[in-house]
Amino acid sequence: MLATVLHGKGEIRCEEVAEATIQKPTDAIIKLSASCICGSDLWPYRGLQPVNGPAHMGHEYCGVVVEVGDAVKTVRPGQFVVGSFCISDSTCPHCRFGFQSSCDQREFMSGAQAPYARVPLADGTLVATAEMPSDDLIPSLLATSDVLGTGWYAADAAGVQEGSTAVVVGDGAVGLMGVLSAKQMGASRIIAMSRHKSRQDLALEFGATDIVSERGDEGVARIKELTNGIGAESVLECVGTQESMMQAMHCARPGGKIGFVGVPHGLQIDGQNLFFQQKSLLGGPAPVRRFLPHLMDLVLGRKINPGKVFDLELPLSDVAEGYRAMDERRAIKTLLRV
Amino acid sequence: MLATVLHGKGEIRCEEVAEATIQKPTDAIIKLSASCICGSDLWPYRGLQPVNGPAHMGHEYCGVVVEVGDAVKTVRPGQFVVGSFCISDSTCPHCRFGFQSSCDQREFMSGAQAPYARVPLADGTLVATAEMPSDDLIPSLLATSDVLGTGWYAADAAGVQEGSTAVVVGDGAVGLMGVLSAKQMGASRIIAMSRHKSRQDLALEFGATDIVSERGDEGVARIKELTNGIGAESVLECVGTQESMMQAMHCARPGGKIGFVGVPHGLQIDGQNLFFQQKSLLGGPAPVRRFLPHLMDLVLGRKINPGKVFDLELPLSDVAEGYRAMDERRAIKTLLRV
Repeated sequence: MLATVLHGKGEIRCEEVAEATIQKPTDAIIKLSASCICGSDLWPYRGLQPVNGPAHMGHEYCGVVVEVGDAVKTVRPGQFVVGSFCISDSTCPHCRFGFQSSCDQREFMSGAQAPYARVPLADGTLVATAEMPSDDLIPSLLATSDVLGTGWYAADAAGVQEGSTAVVVGDGAVGLMGVLSAKQMGASRIIAMSRHKSRQDLALEFGATDIVSERGDEGVARIKELTNGIGAESVLECVGTQESMMQAMHCARPGGKIGFVGVPHGLQIDGQNLFFQQKSLLGGPAPVRRFLPHLMDLVLGRKINPGKVFDLELPLSDVAEGYRAMDERRAIKTLLRV
Repeated sequence: MLATVLHGKGEIRCEEVAEATIQKPTDAIIKLSASCICGSDLWPYRGLQPVNGPAHMGHEYCGVVVEVGDAVKTVRPGQFVVGSFCISDSTCPHCRFGFQSSCDQREFMSGAQAPYARVPLADGTLVATAEMPSDDLIPSLLATSDVLGTGWYAADAAGVQEGSTAVVVGDGAVGLMGVLSAKQMGASRIIAMSRHKSRQDLALEFGATDIVSERGDEGVARIKELTNGIGAESVLECVGTQESMMQAMHCARPGGKIGFVGVPHGLQIDGQNLFFQQKSLLGGPAPVRRFLPHLMDLVLGRKINPGKVFDLELPLSDVAEGYRAMDERRAIKTLLRV
């Protein structure tokens, strides 16, 4: 089949690869309904993360089960499923504690920018719908697999609740999903930090009440101004750089919570500074599986429309253009028709 | 009056200083019932923190009000009071959010290793008892001012609750108070990491269910063994070094919470490591004022006996020996009779 392979910095191609096949009795093979490109795919694409040999790209997925291994009990061919980008058994102590992204058997999904993909630990990882969803819901269901689940985790880790004031640092796809999530959790004030008109507009559509376009110290001063000099009790850090984390830290009030989901690159936190700042930090790869049934229900009930985050749609054969568009910030997130 | 002054590394003396007097209308002067030496006093004493000119030492205190400024409304001469080592107005947004140690008007108490001391912002800082407490309760009431309040905050920030498994890193006075606090909050398993027999014994008396004497990787392996390979949901970090924080990090389960109250010295946290470890961090100077009424009630009702942490008692005139004994680890914590 034709699928997406990264060979090195900037070298992304749609090329012939082996068919997806059952390798372990706990595997399932799915026919993807759609796939997409993640902001984190840009790290190796930009050469900022090593690529060891050809890498089969893509970890966000939804589609129809076509085959299952002998040990698979809860999903069957013909069912529509969504799974997390983190493969998990959902039975180990970490999964049962709600941190499926630290599962004893954790693997990271790969090879989903393709027409078919193998999903390991299918019983633990996949969630099936009762019926085949309408086509127009596919982008939003696909979003629950990672980008929405990750934004949701940022809001959850930041302790967003009814009436909260939340600040979202980062206007990438995850940050925008963080805005949507904070809105769903009942935040009454959602301040999106964004400098790009199209992203500001989407943030407002997803529920942002204020936009702050300044960054760094000026951005922090603006947040303080908007919160009577206090800062926010919940801050969603959706970037992963030193600058964005410091911005998040200074936007949070003492005792406030920072949920950080941007994979940190070069981030160092000074212990004494964190101590006297007195801010709570929780981050990591999102335990999307914990949230998946609820998020899928919200989509199927048409209560949320996270699929709007896809502002570019391309056939899989044009995947290279999809990467370029995101790299050059011409697109927020690219959906791939497979 | 004769009080404690630090002049430089190791140079601690009980010497003549000016009387404590009202300087602002919000001040109170108290006659101390007892005072004590804090582990954090050892940092400047050991020359590991700069001393800029003679420093009036002592920030843990309880005693009888002898004079109040014109603006003081809630305490009056003759009342027995305890206050936090963090001076706070208890009216600013941070205080009302329960983080009095980040009060807009925060000051750190000083000059309490003395017969009399000035307490700024008396209304916000001091909590009075209904009656004059028995003499035998003085050490425990004194403990609530910082060492117990700080251990309590560590347990609170670590999310200890009914049935929790808690690990306490550090067997100093604060760590031992952390054990007592976790016990009060209902932890069913409290693992104290301690290498010293006398401290192990006190930890067991305060409620520890297990003692781990190994440190570093071996200590972590032992904690994993005791928790079925999972780690603890709550870890109290009561030291503040790189080694102790890494130990805390690896003892916590994914999604677990680390409350850190040892003032960090040279601690650096790698962002990517924290991300993939997926542990929650909250620390800082303890908002003792939040807990003070409850802790004083527990002491007055003789439900807890934190005063047991004082294993050396000296007259104020022998304060230098008190510092030496703690520096050389001959004493856990020194009570000073003033």
